[in-house]
Amino acid sequence: MLVITLNPHFLELKPSYLFTDIARKVEAYQQNHPDRRVLKLGIGDVTLPLPQPVIEALNSAVAEMGTAEGFRGYGPEQGYAFLREKICASDYHQRGIYCIQPEDIFVSDGAKSDTGNFLDVLGQQLTVGVSDPVYPVYVDTNIMAGRAQQIVRLPATDANGYQPGPAELTQDLDLIYICSPNNPTGSVASRALLQQWVDYCRQHQALLIFDSAYEAFISDPGLPHSIYEIPGSETCAVEIRSYSKKAGFTGLRCGYTVVPAALMVAAEGQTETVSLRQLWNRRQTTKFNGVPYIVQRAAEAVYTPEGQQACAANIAYYKRNATLLKNGLSQMGYSVYGGSDAPYVWLKVPAGFSSWSFFDYLLEQQALVTTPGSGFGNYGEGYIRLSAFGSYEVTQEAVERLQQLPRPD
Amino acid sequence: MLVITLNPHFLELKPSYLFTDIARKVEAYQQNHPDRRVLKLGIGDVTLPLPQPVIEALNSAVAEMGTAEGFRGYGPEQGYAFLREKICASDYHQRGIYCIQPEDIFVSDGAKSDTGNFLDVLGQQLTVGVSDPVYPVYVDTNIMAGRAQQIVRLPATDANGYQPGPAELTQDLDLIYICSPNNPTGSVASRALLQQWVDYCRQHQALLIFDSAYEAFISDPGLPHSIYEIPGSETCAVEIRSYSKKAGFTGLRCGYTVVPAALMVAAEGQTETVSLRQLWNRRQTTKFNGVPYIVQRAAEAVYTPEGQQACAANIAYYKRNATLLKNGLSQMGYSVYGGSDAPYVWLKVPAGFSSWSFFDYLLEQQALVTTPGSGFGNYGEGYIRLSAFGSYEVTQEAVERLQQLPRPD
Repeated sequence: MLVITLNPHFLELKPSYLFTDIARKVEAYQQNHPDRRVLKLGIGDVTLPLPQPVIEALNSAVAEMGTAEGFRGYGPEQGYAFLREKICASDYHQRGIYCIQPEDIFVSDGAKSDTGNFLDVLGQQLTVGVSDPVYPVYVDTNIMAGRAQQIVRLPATDANGYQPGPAELTQDLDLIYICSPNNPTGSVASRALLQQWVDYCRQHQALLIFDSAYEAFISDPGLPHSIYEIPGSETCAVEIRSYSKKAGFTGLRCGYTVVPAALMVAAEGQTETVSLRQLWNRRQTTKFNGVPYIVQRAAEAVYTPEGQQACAANIAYYKRNATLLKNGLSQMGYSVYGGSDAPYVWLKVPAGFSSWSFFDYLLEQQALVTTPGSGFGNYGEGYIRLSAFGSYEVTQEAVERLQQLPRPD
Repeated sequence: MLVITLNPHFLELKPSYLFTDIARKVEAYQQNHPDRRVLKLGIGDVTLPLPQPVIEALNSAVAEMGTAEGFRGYGPEQGYAFLREKICASDYHQRGIYCIQPEDIFVSDGAKSDTGNFLDVLGQQLTVGVSDPVYPVYVDTNIMAGRAQQIVRLPATDANGYQPGPAELTQDLDLIYICSPNNPTGSVASRALLQQWVDYCRQHQALLIFDSAYEAFISDPGLPHSIYEIPGSETCAVEIRSYSKKAGFTGLRCGYTVVPAALMVAAEGQTETVSLRQLWNRRQTTKFNGVPYIVQRAAEAVYTPEGQQACAANIAYYKRNATLLKNGLSQMGYSVYGGSDAPYVWLKVPAGFSSWSFFDYLLEQQALVTTPGSGFGNYGEGYIRLSAFGSYEVTQEAVERLQQLPRPD
């Protein structure tokens, strides 16, 4: 046994049992009911195969890597120019957002890595705001960084449309996470709400981390896809995006983080300003070696007309599931949220149930697997999350099975 | 401008100009001598295309990802069992190392990421030992973590064969980096020296990080490839490996870190022990989402008989270059080190030159690009690094050009 100095904050983390507990219960059920087909609505992962244009781009990049002329070794840690330029043109300039340039875009192996790693450049004494329920990575990475006592949970409830605003704050924040479209509630922050947050950040010297990993699910033309649609955001917000849900890249690993050139910061007590982009660049060039060339070519293919069409078709497939779930449950008398511009439906459990007891009830009665909302925070208690990432057939049968249960009061 | 709390230690980092300075000088030379063919011996990246068995594995994994049955979404953050088992069997059990199990192996996107990220689990108050000259990532990641004043540089000189030992220490260390085969010196730590370090770590409660990214270049059967060949190491050492140099994966991104189950640690002042493997697992599951499935299949192909043969052929190609450089320079009267079990040759510059003035001399006189040793630390002053990763033709011509220069005294 070695006695060494550990990061003491790792010992403050709560064990994470949500998905192992679910798996254990499902396994037990299946053993007791070997002939019953279990339907999974708990899944937070895409299920459709990679779009054909992405496959073709991978094939051609792999072929290059096998030739002396086409081989590429170490690439730029920030991503190849061909991809950064495509992202900038398609995801920003073509949507009327001109405050972002290719140099602001850092290609990475995914939103989860960037969400955690970005904390490397920030100081420990920050007060951090997250909504509750929350994607657990925001909380756990801040605990690891020593901020367990500085995390403020903002209730996301029916009253605020599951997107809390700065008017509800009772203390100042230095770092704010917004996930929109939201995991787990499926809510989307309005333009007006995001403007309030941007104004808050500029007035109160707070940094906004905007996680828009699910933006491809937005249909409502009035809802913002990017924080940079909000005036002033380029001086206070970092945006994290991913190809995981947009293009089915969960097993291929690619995303990007945007740190605008205009985001200048001064360390507390110092007058000299530094560029946050430059700090992040130093972090990435020191601790990261870039995304595989073949994966970056795959991401580039997402932006071709064929790629756009294929990705849109996959999104439409999942959105049809979401609509089926949302409308089906609504017609049965359940209170449901999300599901319109997001792949998740957030369901209020009937009176008398808790998140877990309703989970158990659906599993026992109809062999349906869901995700208990309480697993995402205290304000998730009384809800379950349903995912639209299954197949249409499974979703359809799930709705039929739900219809066989007594209606909620 | 935002005023927020930054990680103050980022501002303690020195700007890193080594490779930009080299690039600038080479560009200026080329502009003044447009007809002269510049030969690059500075390159730290592989140049041969990916081996055919790796290409075939990629092709077949890409095809799987395009079908409903073969598609894989999120994989285990630690890596797929098929790869962890293959690594364990081939790199450890078949080499007689039985203290390592598949559960101890964490597949990652490369040695650079793991080297930096591993510090997440450690406390700030550690005194860190690195050799000088040194791979800059060890130093910079520790500065970022707040240990700028706690880094002890151990001179790697001709006197100790460019691998310092614990007998030379003048103060206690808590965290020790050993890179063997070494970048930049090409030296390899002997079994006896590694045993001394392991004994030191066990006696002085120090953690050893053993970077063996270049182990595939070892030919001498007496030299250890893995720290786990050393008795007792499984209770004090973490090993970081990479497919970058072994199989040409610098642009494909895959490596792995081994944290043995036997590596139990107690935080200072605490009696309860925790498993370092468990802490690293928590870090990886929280801040990382695994390596692309297709890349893990590519890494698996490295272990097939065809893969082993193809990788061995590529290594042999680079080693022939190293031999050519080493013998050529040696015959000219230069003092050269490394190059036998490593892709780098470490050359003592002739009397009267510094690292940079000899770099300039070789560029101006013979259009040869090298890497000044002083860029790797103060004890690198007076040396240059030559790389064997170029083509045989380039290496051969480089030796011929060197022969046209006056011999060193």
